[in-house]
Amino acid sequence: AAGSCRRRRLAPLNEDNGRFLLLAALIAAYLSAGATVFSALESPSEAAAQLRWNRTLHNFSRIFNISLPELRAFLRSYEAAMAAGIRVDALRPRWDFPGAFYFVGTVVSTIGFGMTTPATVAGKVFLIVYGLFGCAGTILFFNLFLERIISLLAFIMKACHERQLRRSGLLPPNFRRGPAMSGVGSLVGWKPSVYHVMLILGIFAITLSCCASAMYTAVEGWNYIDSLYYCFVTFSTIGFGDLVSSQNAAYQNQGLYRFGNFIFILMGVCCIYSLFNVISIVIKQVLNWVLKKFECRCCPKCHKSSARLGRRNAITPGARLRRHNISMDTDGQYDSDTEGRRLSGEMISMRELTASNKVSLAILQKQLSETANGYPRNVCINTRQNGFSAGVGALAIMNNRLAETSDSR
Amino acid sequence: AAGSCRRRRLAPLNEDNGRFLLLAALIAAYLSAGATVFSALESPSEAAAQLRWNRTLHNFSRIFNISLPELRAFLRSYEAAMAAGIRVDALRPRWDFPGAFYFVGTVVSTIGFGMTTPATVAGKVFLIVYGLFGCAGTILFFNLFLERIISLLAFIMKACHERQLRRSGLLPPNFRRGPAMSGVGSLVGWKPSVYHVMLILGIFAITLSCCASAMYTAVEGWNYIDSLYYCFVTFSTIGFGDLVSSQNAAYQNQGLYRFGNFIFILMGVCCIYSLFNVISIVIKQVLNWVLKKFECRCCPKCHKSSARLGRRNAITPGARLRRHNISMDTDGQYDSDTEGRRLSGEMISMRELTASNKVSLAILQKQLSETANGYPRNVCINTRQNGFSAGVGALAIMNNRLAETSDSR
Repeated sequence: AAGSCRRRRLAPLNEDNGRFLLLAALIAAYLSAGATVFSALESPSEAAAQLRWNRTLHNFSRIFNISLPELRAFLRSYEAAMAAGIRVDALRPRWDFPGAFYFVGTVVSTIGFGMTTPATVAGKVFLIVYGLFGCAGTILFFNLFLERIISLLAFIMKACHERQLRRSGLLPPNFRRGPAMSGVGSLVGWKPSVYHVMLILGIFAITLSCCASAMYTAVEGWNYIDSLYYCFVTFSTIGFGDLVSSQNAAYQNQGLYRFGNFIFILMGVCCIYSLFNVISIVIKQVLNWVLKKFECRCCPKCHKSSARLGRRNAITPGARLRRHNISMDTDGQYDSDTEGRRLSGEMISMRELTASNKVSLAILQKQLSETANGYPRNVCINTRQNGFSAGVGALAIMNNRLAETSDSR
Repeated sequence: AAGSCRRRRLAPLNEDNGRFLLLAALIAAYLSAGATVFSALESPSEAAAQLRWNRTLHNFSRIFNISLPELRAFLRSYEAAMAAGIRVDALRPRWDFPGAFYFVGTVVSTIGFGMTTPATVAGKVFLIVYGLFGCAGTILFFNLFLERIISLLAFIMKACHERQLRRSGLLPPNFRRGPAMSGVGSLVGWKPSVYHVMLILGIFAITLSCCASAMYTAVEGWNYIDSLYYCFVTFSTIGFGDLVSSQNAAYQNQGLYRFGNFIFILMGVCCIYSLFNVISIVIKQVLNWVLKKFECRCCPKCHKSSARLGRRNAITPGARLRRHNISMDTDGQYDSDTEGRRLSGEMISMRELTASNKVSLAILQKQLSETANGYPRNVCINTRQNGFSAGVGALAIMNNRLAETSDSR
């Protein structure tokens, strides 16, 4: 009994750490695979570029009778000039107000093209202080945007779902959402699927990228694939800087183009940030599935005993209540460490005592709460001992709002 | 009564949107201020660089008797070669396996130095697909890291706090955390302050940056300020690419340096990501404070009536329970829209009926739950009508784990 108790106390910690380490290992494997593919794809082009440049350099040296060291010194000074934002074909001024505004925009969004970088010591020191609060503020902005967009999508999809139900005759035509109605149970717990949200965000991101690419192709003269590549690199805040929009000295309709560029980048960054976060829910589900499979095969005895304990402690009331067709917020947040300690040791006897009559108590509690608050969803029973099941990072705000994140984690 | 009811129904939506818009306005002002400062700091240096380069170009043209158009054509071909990663002083190969690994690392972390970029169409298309899942996985990794580090810090700070209490004689020396003890109330609800966590993470980030800068100064030959600037730009995933570590063709102890570079960047990115998220909690608190001030001054009548309604609905039981010195998870997550609808209209009479005996019911409910579960913290009463108070984005996992994020939002 003491052994299973210790195992139970360590279990939540192990699962969290296990997921973290599994993800780290998967990312390492993903990086290695990606490096292999990119190496195979790009190596020939690198060798060709090197060959081409060597031929140009030696031709130039021969024709104009300049020694290679002299030419190299000249090119080094051109490299220094390029770092300050100078090109053969005149670019827009780097540090006038619009240029500096574009620059600080790439700083706080962490795009960081590098087409403009501070050259003075004062500028570099100010950048560190400025970026610290700017980036933090922008992360908050992205997270608030994520919350707003998920709310909006959930609201729209719920309305669509309701209309569909009404059309197919499953709901009466004069259906209104209210607890006094009898048919309410089917929609109260309804949440949009994470896959549907991912699909919608994905379609929106693709549409946005295509529109933006059409603009860049027309105005910058890039080909369409390059424009799409630029859109992805920018919207994901990678920001290589090999292609940067709105850098020429002059454009037709310059004001309009700059405004369109700003709006596209703003919307694109917000949209792709949301898409990344929704995709990472799916990745987390895959991780949990892998961990569960691994646990089942690896340690059947441990798993069985912890599952038995878990069921007695927490799952049964949840399962019973779920049969009453009430959607519950099963993911409370509290300190898992403290809970773990309190559950172990001196608590074991009290738990044994109360385990038998817990289900009926939970139902009584639910009924009391419903009477007190006038609506059933105010009951909040933590069916899991692990406080972190409420969600991780930006995902947490999507928790209990999407079908897949409500009951399983 | 109908008017105040409608106002109440709209209030949560307005507050969320208000916070979002306030943040957007503040970021716009912050960007404008930053652009002005950077413009003033960097403009002279830009003009000087332009002047210097023009002098070099014309000198070179005069000495070697090369016409400017010919020289410009040569420099344009050098620009193309530079985009392929060629420099006068030989750099490391771009697309061998270690180089490609460094490249994919900057992609998935969204640092995106741009020292290496795909040149082929196949490489660009593959980058889009690869980056989509890579960036999503890395966001999940950062969020899991954030969760782990906050757990660790909370655990350590709690232990320190407990030791301090014991030393000052406020706790008996044989104190153990367990619900059977009487002195438990003082530590059960204890959570570390967000400012302390910010301080610790900040000190850790500064220490890490200083160590990394010492390495870069020694190995790359940059000056110390440049190294610190590089550390901030890299760890915050801005990644300008004006300075990039580990790019020379050969170093002393090359394997060791590459490993150290990798470890510093990995730790730095995780640490600064966590720091940004903790800072954004503080920014959110400032926003809430500003919104409250604004509300108080702008619309005293609205505010008063909604506060009265709010108190009758939800705050009183929470306040009463809080007097019993029990830390509660007040931030449940449920669909605010549905709740708003159910609260209005037909529910108003039922609410009036149950408002009077709600406090005693809530206490009964709490006692039942304690008996059922063996520990008091399983009670979870939603004292707020707004489902999003549980936290936003990556902040949500710090919710209920830091003192400032538990009761106020």
